[in-house]
Amino acid sequence: MYFASDNTAPAHPAVMQALADANTGYAMPYGNDPIMDRVRSAIRDTFEAPEAAVYLVATGTAANVLSLACYCPPWASVFCHRISHIEQDECGAPEFYTGGAKLILVEGENGRIDPGELERTIRFTGRGGVHNVQRGMVSITNSTEAGGVYTPAQVAEIAAIAHGHDLPLHMDGARFANALTATNASPADMTWRAGVDVLSFGGTKNGAMGVEAVVLFDPEKAWEFELRRKRGGHLFSKHRYLSAQMEAYLADGLWLDLARAANASARRLSQGIVKAGGTLLHPTEANAVFAAWPRDGHRRAQNAGAAYYLWPFGQSMEGPGDEHLSARLVCSWCTTDDDIDSFLGLISG
Amino acid sequence: MYFASDNTAPAHPAVMQALADANTGYAMPYGNDPIMDRVRSAIRDTFEAPEAAVYLVATGTAANVLSLACYCPPWASVFCHRISHIEQDECGAPEFYTGGAKLILVEGENGRIDPGELERTIRFTGRGGVHNVQRGMVSITNSTEAGGVYTPAQVAEIAAIAHGHDLPLHMDGARFANALTATNASPADMTWRAGVDVLSFGGTKNGAMGVEAVVLFDPEKAWEFELRRKRGGHLFSKHRYLSAQMEAYLADGLWLDLARAANASARRLSQGIVKAGGTLLHPTEANAVFAAWPRDGHRRAQNAGAAYYLWPFGQSMEGPGDEHLSARLVCSWCTTDDDIDSFLGLISG
Amino acid sequence: MYFASDNTAPAHPAVMQALADANTGYAMPYGNDPIMDRVRSAIRDTFEAPEAAVYLVATGTAANVLSLACYCPPWASVFCHRISHIEQDECGAPEFYTGGAKLILVEGENGRIDPGELERTIRFTGRGGVHNVQRGMVSITNSTEAGGVYTPAQVAEIAAIAHGHDLPLHMDGARFANALTATNASPADMTWRAGVDVLSFGGTKNGAMGVEAVVLFDPEKAWEFELRRKRGGHLFSKHRYLSAQMEAYLADGLWLDLARAANASARRLSQGIVKAGGTLLHPTEANAVFAAWPRDGHRRAQNAGAAYYLWPFGQSMEGPGDEHLSARLVCSWCTTDDDIDSFLGLISG
Amino acid sequence: MYFASDNTAPAHPAVMQALADANTGYAMPYGNDPIMDRVRSAIRDTFEAPEAAVYLVATGTAANVLSLACYCPPWASVFCHRISHIEQDECGAPEFYTGGAKLILVEGENGRIDPGELERTIRFTGRGGVHNVQRGMVSITNSTEAGGVYTPAQVAEIAAIAHGHDLPLHMDGARFANALTATNASPADMTWRAGVDVLSFGGTKNGAMGVEAVVLFDPEKAWEFELRRKRGGHLFSKHRYLSAQMEAYLADGLWLDLARAANASARRLSQGIVKAGGTLLHPTEANAVFAAWPRDGHRRAQNAGAAYYLWPFGQSMEGPGDEHLSARLVCSWCTTDDDIDSFLGLISG
Repeated sequence: MYFASDNTAPAHPAVMQALADANTGYAMPYGNDPIMDRVRSAIRDTFEAPEAAVYLVATGTAANVLSLACYCPPWASVFCHRISHIEQDECGAPEFYTGGAKLILVEGENGRIDPGELERTIRFTGRGGVHNVQRGMVSITNSTEAGGVYTPAQVAEIAAIAHGHDLPLHMDGARFANALTATNASPADMTWRAGVDVLSFGGTKNGAMGVEAVVLFDPEKAWEFELRRKRGGHLFSKHRYLSAQMEAYLADGLWLDLARAANASARRLSQGIVKAGGTLLHPTEANAVFAAWPRDGHRRAQNAGAAYYLWPFGQSMEGPGDEHLSARLVCSWCTTDDDIDSFLGLISG
Repeated sequence: MYFASDNTAPAHPAVMQALADANTGYAMPYGNDPIMDRVRSAIRDTFEAPEAAVYLVATGTAANVLSLACYCPPWASVFCHRISHIEQDECGAPEFYTGGAKLILVEGENGRIDPGELERTIRFTGRGGVHNVQRGMVSITNSTEAGGVYTPAQVAEIAAIAHGHDLPLHMDGARFANALTATNASPADMTWRAGVDVLSFGGTKNGAMGVEAVVLFDPEKAWEFELRRKRGGHLFSKHRYLSAQMEAYLADGLWLDLARAANASARRLSQGIVKAGGTLLHPTEANAVFAAWPRDGHRRAQNAGAAYYLWPFGQSMEGPGDEHLSARLVCSWCTTDDDIDSFLGLISG
Repeated sequence: MYFASDNTAPAHPAVMQALADANTGYAMPYGNDPIMDRVRSAIRDTFEAPEAAVYLVATGTAANVLSLACYCPPWASVFCHRISHIEQDECGAPEFYTGGAKLILVEGENGRIDPGELERTIRFTGRGGVHNVQRGMVSITNSTEAGGVYTPAQVAEIAAIAHGHDLPLHMDGARFANALTATNASPADMTWRAGVDVLSFGGTKNGAMGVEAVVLFDPEKAWEFELRRKRGGHLFSKHRYLSAQMEAYLADGLWLDLARAANASARRLSQGIVKAGGTLLHPTEANAVFAAWPRDGHRRAQNAGAAYYLWPFGQSMEGPGDEHLSARLVCSWCTTDDDIDSFLGLISG
Repeated sequence: MYFASDNTAPAHPAVMQALADANTGYAMPYGNDPIMDRVRSAIRDTFEAPEAAVYLVATGTAANVLSLACYCPPWASVFCHRISHIEQDECGAPEFYTGGAKLILVEGENGRIDPGELERTIRFTGRGGVHNVQRGMVSITNSTEAGGVYTPAQVAEIAAIAHGHDLPLHMDGARFANALTATNASPADMTWRAGVDVLSFGGTKNGAMGVEAVVLFDPEKAWEFELRRKRGGHLFSKHRYLSAQMEAYLADGLWLDLARAANASARRLSQGIVKAGGTLLHPTEANAVFAAWPRDGHRRAQNAGAAYYLWPFGQSMEGPGDEHLSARLVCSWCTTDDDIDSFLGLISG
C-alpha cells in the first residue's frame, strides 16, 4: 500500500536487464555511445520528429531547468501554474539555471493553466518596458501536479496564446506517458503538432531507474543545450547507462503499458474511495488521486502501514474521527489491485 | 586496447548485482532509502570521520562544483592547478555554481600544485582590497590530471598554506582510490588528517556506473550542500540506485582492489613503453601514462584499433615515422595484461 | 503641472551648491573622501545608530538589491508586496543580485503587507524541506507604492512576524522622508527600534540628483556589502560627489522640509480632486495621489500639458466623457500650489 | 603633487556648469531627457557612426561589464591582458554580469595584448568541445593599464585575430581620450574602422564627475543592453545629470584638450624622472608614468606629501636609500607643471 509517490517504485525488470546488457566492454563516453544513436532515432520516430534534438539527463529537475534556460533569458518570465513542479518543488532550480528569471504564476483548475488567465497575465507583464521583467516563455505540466490531463486541443489552446506573444512553450512531461495514454493521443499530436517547442520526457517515475529525455523539436538550441547540460554537471561520462534505460523504456511500447497500468490503478482506487463515501478534490485523469475521507479511515490505513501524504500539508491526524481529511495518492506501474483493495478495505472501516 | 579514459570501462559486476538487489519493492526517495544509511556509515568508518556529512551525486563535475560552491563565495577565487579538471574540463561549471568565482591558476609538476607558487599566488591575490577578487579556497586533484599523486605529507603541505590564509581545501578525488593505493595511505591520513576540508570521492571511473560521494569533514555546511544539490538538479528521486552502487563499491575493499589493478596495469604499460624506446612525460604514479614514442608506432597501434588520445592536442599523424608523438593512456580496473602486451607489441614494431 | 513622478523634479539648489563646493582639489576615491566621513556620522546620528554601517550608491534599485543580496541566499525567498518596486519595477534586479532568489508576493491594502497574510505565506513557504525555496527575508516599502504609510507600530508588527521566523527585515525607503514626516516618527523609531535590519534610505526622489544610502543597522554584513557593491559596478571612483549630495540633503533638516512640502502638495491635490467630484483609490498618506475623475477632465488636463500616468495601465482616453478613469499623481519637493490649482481647475471643467 | 590616480581629480568647471544648467524644471527620467538626444547625436557624429546605439552609465566598471555581458555567453571566455582592469580591479564584476564567463589571460608588453599570444591562446581554448569553456570575445584597454597605447593599426591587428575566430572585440576606453590624442587618430579610426564592436567610452577619469558612455557600433544588442543596464541597477532616474556631463565633456573638444594636457604632464614628469637618474618600467605613451628611482627620493617625496602608489605592491620603504623602488604616477587634466617640477625637485634630492 505505497501511494506516496511514483518515484518510490522500483525500476521495471526490462530496464534492469538493459543495464546489464549494456555492461559489456568499452563504450564511448558523454553521449557518444551507440545505444544513444538508437535512442535518438527511437524518440524521433516516436514523435514523428526527424529533426528533433534529443538529450538524456538523470533527473526531472535537470530536464526542466535546462529546457527553460535555453528559452528564457535572465530578465524574462516563465508563465506557469501556481502548483507546478518548477514553482513548488525544485528549490529555485529554474531561477538558478536561467540566471534569475521570474516565475509568474497562473491559476486554473486541476493544475491546468486557464487560457483566459494566461492571456491576461501575459498582457499585464512587460507593459512597463525596460522597468519590468519581460515576457519569456510558458511552461505546462502534463499530466498535471493535480492529476489532471491536457488534451492535445487544450495544449494547442495554450500554445496559441503563447505563440501569439512570440513565446515558446515547454511541457514538463515527467508523467507524459500517463497523459498520453489517458487521452489516447499520439506523441506528436500531444507535443509539436499542438505547439510544444521543448519537452521534458519523463522515464524515472514510470519504470526507469533515473532517466529523462529532453526533446527540442526545433534543434536550433541544441548546442546551447549541450553546453548548459555540461556546465550544470549533467553530462554523464558513462552515458550508456542512461541510453540503455531509455531504450528499454521505449521498446515494444513498454512506457505506454506501464502508464496504462498506473492510470488504471488510479481509476480503481479513485472509484473505490468514492464508493466508500469519500470525495475527490480533482477528477482522476491520470495516475494520481486527490481525495478526502474520514480521519478514522486515515488512521486505520496509516496504522496498517499505508504510505501517502495528507494534502495539502498542515492537516492533523488529531481530531474527530468523522472529519474528512484530504490526501494525495499516486499509483505507479507496479501498484497491484490487491494493494488497492486492501487499502480501500482499511479506509472503509 | 582501450586507453582513451577510465570512464569508457563498464561497471564492475558487483555494482550491477547491487543494483539488481536494490530493485525490489518501494523505497523512500531523495536519499532517505535505507541503503544510504549504510553508505553513510560505511564512508564515515572508512574515513574514521564519524561526524562527516556524506552525500551522493552522479557525476564528478557535480561533486566538485557543489563542493566549491559551499566554500567559495562569488567574489572570491579558487586556487587550482592550470591543468585541473575544474579549470579545463567542466565548461565553466565552477563559475556557474559559485555564482562567478574566479579560478586562479597555479603551476607545478605532474599536476601537483607547487607549494611555493601557491603561497606567492595567494599573497598576490586580494591585496587591492575591495577592488580585487578575494581569496576563496584551494582545490587539488589526487591523483592528478597528469597521473601524479600527492602523498599525505604533500597534501598536508598544501593544506598548511591554505589554512595559513584561512582558506579551506578541497580535494577532487575522481581518482582518489588510485592515489590511495599508490601511496598505501589510509583514507583519513590522505584527507582530513592532512587538512582536507571537503572531498569529491569518485566511484564512476573506478568501477561504478555513475556515483560520486561528497564528504564534508566538517558538517557545518551540510544543509547548504543539500539545498545546492537540489537546486542544481542533482538530488535523485530514486536515490537507492546511487546508494546501491556506492555500497557495493566500498564492500570488501572492492574500490581498493580495482584501483590497485588499474595502477598495476599502468605500471606495466609504462615500463613496456620505456623498454620499447619511448619516454615518459610524467612519472607513472597512478593509472595514467603520459608517454612519447615514434609516429610509426602510433600508426600501427591506431590501425589495429587502439584507442587513446595524442596529448597535448594538436599533434598530427602526418609526418616522419621516426618522430616522437606524445599520448595519454589511461588504464582502468578492467584493463588486461593481454591488452597491454598487444599494444606494446604494436608500438614496438 | 508635472505629476508623472517625483524623479522628474530637479535637484534642490542646496544639493547643487554642495556639489560645486566639493569640486575643489584632489580627493581620495571610492568612499575614502572626508565628506563621506561626515555623512557616515550624520546618518548614524540621525538614526541614533552609532554602530550602523553606511554606504552610498546612486540608484534606488542598487540600494535595494544590494541590501537584499546581503541577507537572502540564492535558494530563499523575499516576501514582499505584490506591487512593490522590487517586484514590479526593477526588471529582475533582485533575482540577478541574489543569484536567483524568489520573490513571494503578499497582499495588503494601500501597498502595505497585511500581517496575517504575511504570517500565512511564511508558514506555507519551505514546508517541503529541501524541495522548496527556503524562507529568506521580508521587504516592505515606506512610503508604499500606493501612497500609503506604515507607522512605526505597523513596521513593528511586520518585523515581529519576520523575526519570529528568524527572517531579517528590509525597508525600501526610496520615499522614507515622506513616510517619516507623514507620521512624525523619529528615524530610529521607524527603523531599527521597530525591527528594521537594513534600510534603503532614498535621496534621489526627494531633492538629490542621484544618491541613496544603505544603512546596515547591524554592521556584520558591512564587508560583504562593500564587495557586492564593487562587484555590481556601484562603487564610485569620484565618490565625493555622492557624499556631497547626501551631506547637503541631511543638513539642517532639508530632507524633512522637502518631504513635508511634497506631502502637503499631495494633500492639497487630493482634497481638490475629491472636492471636484473625484474619488480616491487609496488614502493620500504621503506624496502620491491615486484618484479617479471623468475622462473629460483627463482630456482637458492632458491637452493643457499636464503630465501623469493613468493607473493601472490599460485604460483608454477613448470613450464616454463622463466615465471615470483613474490615475497616479506624484508630488515632489518643488510642486507648487499654482501647479496644483491650475490642474484642479482643468479637471473640474 | 597628487599622482595617485586620475580619479582623484575634480570635475572640470564646464562639466559642473552643465549640471547647474540642467537643473531647471522637470525632465523625463531614465534616458528620455532631451539632453540625451543631443548626446546620442554628438557621439554618433564624433565616431562617424550614425547607427550606433549609445548609453550612459556612471562607472567604468558598469560600462565594461554590461558590454561584456551582451557579447559573451556564460559558458565562454573573455580573452584579456593579465593586467587588465576587468581582470584585476573589478572584484569579479565581469564574472557576475556575464553569469560566470571565464577571463583567459594573455601576455604582452606595456599592457598591450601580444597578437601572436592571442592567436595561440584562442586556438588552445575550446578544443575539447563541450567539455571546455568556449571562445567568447576579446577585450583590450586603450590606453592600457601600463600607460601604453594601441595605435589604430595595432587595434586592427587584434581585431583581425578576434574576427578571424568570429569573436567580437571590446575596448575598455576608460582613458580613450588619452589614447586618441596620443596617436592623433580619429575616434572612428581607433574603433569601428579598426574592428572594435563595443566601446566603453570614459569620461570620469578625464574631467567628468561620473559618466561613461557605452557605444555599440552594431545596434543589434541595444535592447538587451538596456535590459541588462536596468537589471544591474545602472539606469538613472534623473538621467539628465549623466547626459549633461557628457554633453559638456564633448562640447568644443573639451575631452581632447583635457587628455592632451594630462598626456603632456605625464611626458614632462617622465622626462624629468629620467633626467634625474630614474628609469622607466614602461614607455610613457599616455598619462601614466611607471618609473623607478632611489628610495631616498621616495622618502623625500612622501614626506612632502606627494601621493602615488609604489608599483607593484609589496615594496618596502624600509631599506637602503640608494635602492631603486618603482612607482605608478598618473597625471590628470588638472596636473600642473608646478606640481610636477616640485615633485621632480624632491626625488632629485
